Amino acid sequence: MPLTDSGKSYRNECTGDALVTVNAHSRDEAITLFGACFCPFVQRVWIAFEYLQIPYKVREVDPYKKPKSLLELSPKGLVPALRLETFDPPRALNESTVILEFLEDTALSSGKNTLLPPSSAPYPRARIRLISDHINRTLIPSFYRFLQTSSNTPDSDEKLVENGKEYRESLEGLGEMMQKAEKDGVEGLGMWKEGGEIGWTDVMVGPWLFRSTNVLAHYRSFDLLPPSAENSKFAAWIDRLFAHPAFKATCSTEDLYIDSYERYAWNRPNTSQVANAINSGRGLP
Amino acid sequence: MPLTDSGKSYRNECTGDALVTVNAHSRDEAITLFGACFCPFVQRVWIAFEYLQIPYKVREVDPYKKPKSLLELSPKGLVPALRLETFDPPRALNESTVILEFLEDTALSSGKNTLLPPSSAPYPRARIRLISDHINRTLIPSFYRFLQTSSNTPDSDEKLVENGKEYRESLEGLGEMMQKAEKDGVEGLGMWKEGGEIGWTDVMVGPWLFRSTNVLAHYRSFDLLPPSAENSKFAAWIDRLFAHPAFKATCSTEDLYIDSYERYAWNRPNTSQVANAINSGRGLP
Repeated sequence: MPLTDSGKSYRNECTGDALVTVNAHSRDEAITLFGACFCPFVQRVWIAFEYLQIPYKVREVDPYKKPKSLLELSPKGLVPALRLETFDPPRALNESTVILEFLEDTALSSGKNTLLPPSSAPYPRARIRLISDHINRTLIPSFYRFLQTSSNTPDSDEKLVENGKEYRESLEGLGEMMQKAEKDGVEGLGMWKEGGEIGWTDVMVGPWLFRSTNVLAHYRSFDLLPPSAENSKFAAWIDRLFAHPAFKATCSTEDLYIDSYERYAWNRPNTSQVANAINSGRGLP
Repeated sequence: MPLTDSGKSYRNECTGDALVTVNAHSRDEAITLFGACFCPFVQRVWIAFEYLQIPYKVREVDPYKKPKSLLELSPKGLVPALRLETFDPPRALNESTVILEFLEDTALSSGKNTLLPPSSAPYPRARIRLISDHINRTLIPSFYRFLQTSSNTPDSDEKLVENGKEYRESLEGLGEMMQKAEKDGVEGLGMWKEGGEIGWTDVMVGPWLFRSTNVLAHYRSFDLLPPSAENSKFAAWIDRLFAHPAFKATCSTEDLYIDSYERYAWNRPNTSQVANAINSGRGLP
């Protein structure tokens, strides 16, 4: 039976493992992470907090009914955003990639885990940033274009095939970049390597890989690991990454994502700033 | 008299101060910078090489008749690209922002100048990266949308006003972010501060500010510093930045830019990968 738009709204509260993590981080801390349960940009930052063991409080907000406390931190009201009580008055930070750089630098001085190779290894760092650039500027926009291909217009079948192919190519491009970096002896490839630990590329792309296995699987019959990829390095990477405690700790149950993304799958008007940017052919906000 | 498309092509060789610099960097070095004389993404990296005093050779290429040596370094044949002979076999790097991170890390270990505050100051670093994010994702695309607004379609006047306004707003947004960062005591704002030295935001945006004063002035009658901004901090910043030796050393004479950008100003088909991305509503390549 074909899917129909059942009018579900996004969720506002984490479930499953992510709910346990929220509850464990409800006490005041020097850093507060403002997040939304379904948002992959938030999940990036959240995995980093967990893995880097930086103390934080998490505050779940409705990103479409932006509370004043969020708008004070993030001019467009976008999550993730941080409030830093280490300053007086408190300071703000937004943009997931910028926040990740901030957390990495913060972790450096506390001597715990890190996500990138050290700055004394400029080249491997740069190669990892090059892969991240592919993720931010190619893979993520193509994820949304594919998901938002409206299912109710005459040309939708053709567009679906085209946009699905493009997303597939962006994933293959990612796999090739990781494989080439490994071949070139680049260190710091995170969970890509057997026995590795969470790294920069893992947090950068993990949330969309995860949503490929539930949201895209449900609405677009997408198979992140088709039979041809079953025994690939890519498949082994996904397995290891999804099983890592810092990753799992930030995942809600799959129904939460499927419900929350129905708006995108039917490309309802004004679904989000991200969705509008994709529809108008602009870069992500 | 209205401008007409005189069919000028882009230039292939630097002129003026930039030519002197090219000639001074023609001997083999561990790092070769592949560049094109008019390209602002190349100029970013070039200013950094000059200011950080990292030894380099520069090789001017025709980015539209991509030599094989360039395609080996940069999959889409885009400049800037680096060839690093410090590795055997030599390694490659592309993407201006990624190359800048590489140069910054390289400079760190040699103890010379740097562009960013140290990693022991995570918050100022992050605020500067937030400003750079605005430059990369808002200001630069709006520069090209404004420049490429086709002068020969019926709706061009309306579009010109709209896109000019958008570019102006992105510049004002930049000024506001710099000013707010200064107010918040953020260090490392480069030439924005009187007596400052070249910093990260200077190299990130300088090439487009410069092209606003010649390319946009010529083709779009754009005034980067309208009377209302004459005595502003923004104006003082521009003055200091354009006069800095590392900046000047990478500038050709203005006619080179005006000639090279005529293709963009008339939005000729297949002007460049950047121009095509703007026309098709995709992110920059």
